[in-house]
Amino acid sequence: MGKRFVDLIQWKKDGKQLSDREIKQMIMDYTQGRIPDYQMSAMLMAICFQGMSDEELTAMTMAMKDSGKTVDLSDIKGVTVDKHSTGGVGDKTTLVAGPIAAAAGVTIAKMSGRGLGFTGGTIDKLESIPGFRTDLTNEEFFRNIQKTGICITGQSGDLAPADKLLYALRDVTATVESIPLIAASVMSKKLAAGCDKILLEVTTGSGALVKTKEGSAELAKRMTAIGKLAGKETTAIITNMNEPLGYAVGNSLEVSEAAAALKGEGPDDVMELCYTLAGEMIYMAGGGKVSSAEARKTAEQKVNDGSALNKLKEMTAAQGGDVSYIDNTEQFGEAAFQGEVTAPQSGYIIRMNTSGIGAASGMLGAGRMTKESSIDFQAGIVLTKKTGDYVEKGERTAVLYANNKERMESAKAHMEKQYLIGGSKPEKEYLILDRILSGD
Amino acid sequence: MGKRFVDLIQWKKDGKQLSDREIKQMIMDYTQGRIPDYQMSAMLMAICFQGMSDEELTAMTMAMKDSGKTVDLSDIKGVTVDKHSTGGVGDKTTLVAGPIAAAAGVTIAKMSGRGLGFTGGTIDKLESIPGFRTDLTNEEFFRNIQKTGICITGQSGDLAPADKLLYALRDVTATVESIPLIAASVMSKKLAAGCDKILLEVTTGSGALVKTKEGSAELAKRMTAIGKLAGKETTAIITNMNEPLGYAVGNSLEVSEAAAALKGEGPDDVMELCYTLAGEMIYMAGGGKVSSAEARKTAEQKVNDGSALNKLKEMTAAQGGDVSYIDNTEQFGEAAFQGEVTAPQSGYIIRMNTSGIGAASGMLGAGRMTKESSIDFQAGIVLTKKTGDYVEKGERTAVLYANNKERMESAKAHMEKQYLIGGSKPEKEYLILDRILSGD
Repeated sequence: MGKRFVDLIQWKKDGKQLSDREIKQMIMDYTQGRIPDYQMSAMLMAICFQGMSDEELTAMTMAMKDSGKTVDLSDIKGVTVDKHSTGGVGDKTTLVAGPIAAAAGVTIAKMSGRGLGFTGGTIDKLESIPGFRTDLTNEEFFRNIQKTGICITGQSGDLAPADKLLYALRDVTATVESIPLIAASVMSKKLAAGCDKILLEVTTGSGALVKTKEGSAELAKRMTAIGKLAGKETTAIITNMNEPLGYAVGNSLEVSEAAAALKGEGPDDVMELCYTLAGEMIYMAGGGKVSSAEARKTAEQKVNDGSALNKLKEMTAAQGGDVSYIDNTEQFGEAAFQGEVTAPQSGYIIRMNTSGIGAASGMLGAGRMTKESSIDFQAGIVLTKKTGDYVEKGERTAVLYANNKERMESAKAHMEKQYLIGGSKPEKEYLILDRILSGD
Repeated sequence: MGKRFVDLIQWKKDGKQLSDREIKQMIMDYTQGRIPDYQMSAMLMAICFQGMSDEELTAMTMAMKDSGKTVDLSDIKGVTVDKHSTGGVGDKTTLVAGPIAAAAGVTIAKMSGRGLGFTGGTIDKLESIPGFRTDLTNEEFFRNIQKTGICITGQSGDLAPADKLLYALRDVTATVESIPLIAASVMSKKLAAGCDKILLEVTTGSGALVKTKEGSAELAKRMTAIGKLAGKETTAIITNMNEPLGYAVGNSLEVSEAAAALKGEGPDDVMELCYTLAGEMIYMAGGGKVSSAEARKTAEQKVNDGSALNKLKEMTAAQGGDVSYIDNTEQFGEAAFQGEVTAPQSGYIIRMNTSGIGAASGMLGAGRMTKESSIDFQAGIVLTKKTGDYVEKGERTAVLYANNKERMESAKAHMEKQYLIGGSKPEKEYLILDRILSGD
């Protein structure tokens, strides 16, 4: 007598391991509508508490990958690299590190999901450039990669449909925060997207999905292990998300900051992280022929000689975007309403609640609160002070942008609560916390 | 901004406490279809892992009680007592202890749910008596109580509808085994049923929902605490369910054993437990005017003088049942197929897997596997040996009864695996493990 799905839930609830066959069947049955949502959500919650073994996680990831079509990039010349971030506030690294690596000859073929949350995703940011298309056909995607060496498009609907269904369910059942479930979600999509190598930016801290360093290290280890088992070199860089990355949060605001970075004029943290990520991609694509240090140096050169900026412009032109916005980002214009956040007292900014800042940016209109809502590309925040800075009482800490007055007021009230100001300067935190290779 | 239900799931998942208002709202919204099953099942699974505080449990129980109609028994003269068992295999105590207590002047007004599981519930057992009606109207229920002092009928559909919905969901999402959820389910129904006092038989061991003594003691404490908070004296007796109670498992087989017990001829464990439970009800109804020892003695007298047996017959007659079956239980007849389970080796029966025996009885046809399936009243098991008995290899340990040959074969194969036979006689276990009063 075969086990019923309720028996599998009980099994997992009791902390026992599901077999490869049981997990494959579960993902297939759920994707095809044979397991009701109310059973799957109970299973997901049990997984949140009991975790998954490496065998279970690999089986789940592979089954999710195989739930739909997969992209075959084998006809593309050179080494294709995919880069993925587990999400953060002000994280525009793909817009910077991607073109740098492409300028150095790495083939960047990225399919990106839309941001569902407080801040837009990479796709949303790119769409703030007038004309920029992210709904490329597979043929266009391939042609663009071959022509310019880089293409970032929206994720095709038939890629890992199991992940799409599971993510939608997790989102409404408080089962998003689970290391194995996050790992399976990310890696099933990355494996389906077909690149040779995968670079993961695993964020950690108050603006990340996983708040602790230990949790993020665990997530990085589990994702790189899956990559290795699937025969794809996978590297994870653990990055600090205890404050937003750079100063800009919001779609066209972040494109402007990314363009500045490609001109060599970005904030220090953006420059440092993008050099690291681009260097890592160059190193991975080199397959042992270039050292880490050389790869990093190449990344810096590609910014200094202007070729990385040109690559962003080439990509933008190839996808129908107005390149003049990259050269002159003032064309994005400012939102109708601007507001200031000021310090309630004098002192050092000891801590910023980064996810709270992300939420404020969502209130301003920069994010998508439901799948159906539209994004205001001009909305967002430009920080003027960050953690460790000294502020006088009443001094400006951030400028807010919105095209709706009410949104401005509620975001401003929310934003004021996201700072901890105190008497002594906090210790500087590391930006890059760890680098984890496949099978570490 | 009010919390969304997904935020409450997260809150509970994180081990934090839900407010009284939040729990009331949750039960109301779920009962009225405003919370989807997939969110409620995630919440229930989170509760399985994180538990509930006393405040949460009380709020949940009261909200479930108030989700439908409640019975008003205030017009009934005398002290009304409700008795509930958390379930076991061969547990026919209500059929014995109820009439004993009623014969001693206690008013027994019991609304009982149908058994959904391997073995039938009290209602199913009573229905094996030809003509016995368990679908009484409220008026009939009241009239019977007033006339004979005892009535056991099916639970009206509008009593605690939230529990009905939640139980159906728990059953298919592996969230049945949770002490607070069991406590809320039992007590919401008992409080809605309106008796003055409540006696709980909390089973523990291999045939019980809660397998450990610690878990059962915790369940008993939490249920009696709710009773106290609701102003109802509630006592729990913790009873050993490491082997079936008595020898008979199955509906008419158990009625026969119950009738024998009321004639003073039941198995020792059935007699002992029923005297204890009936004594407890007599003691509770006495309100301090009779001692425990006197109450127990009265219970024994009511069996010895035949008045308890008469009370079962009165109740049966009042509910349309054929009383001659109580006098002469051979009328129930035997099922068409009988099978024997024999000992695979000589030795002492060291352990019986009681829930496995319950499952075998279900396979024979004695239980209801889905809400829609019907019960075979003649199907079941008569044990001929129990834990501690010595058996020779090949000696009969049980007789199985079924009206379907295939069912007989699969039940027999299953039944053979439920015994552990070994060289040394096991220590005798206590039948009655603890007595827990309101607020202990």
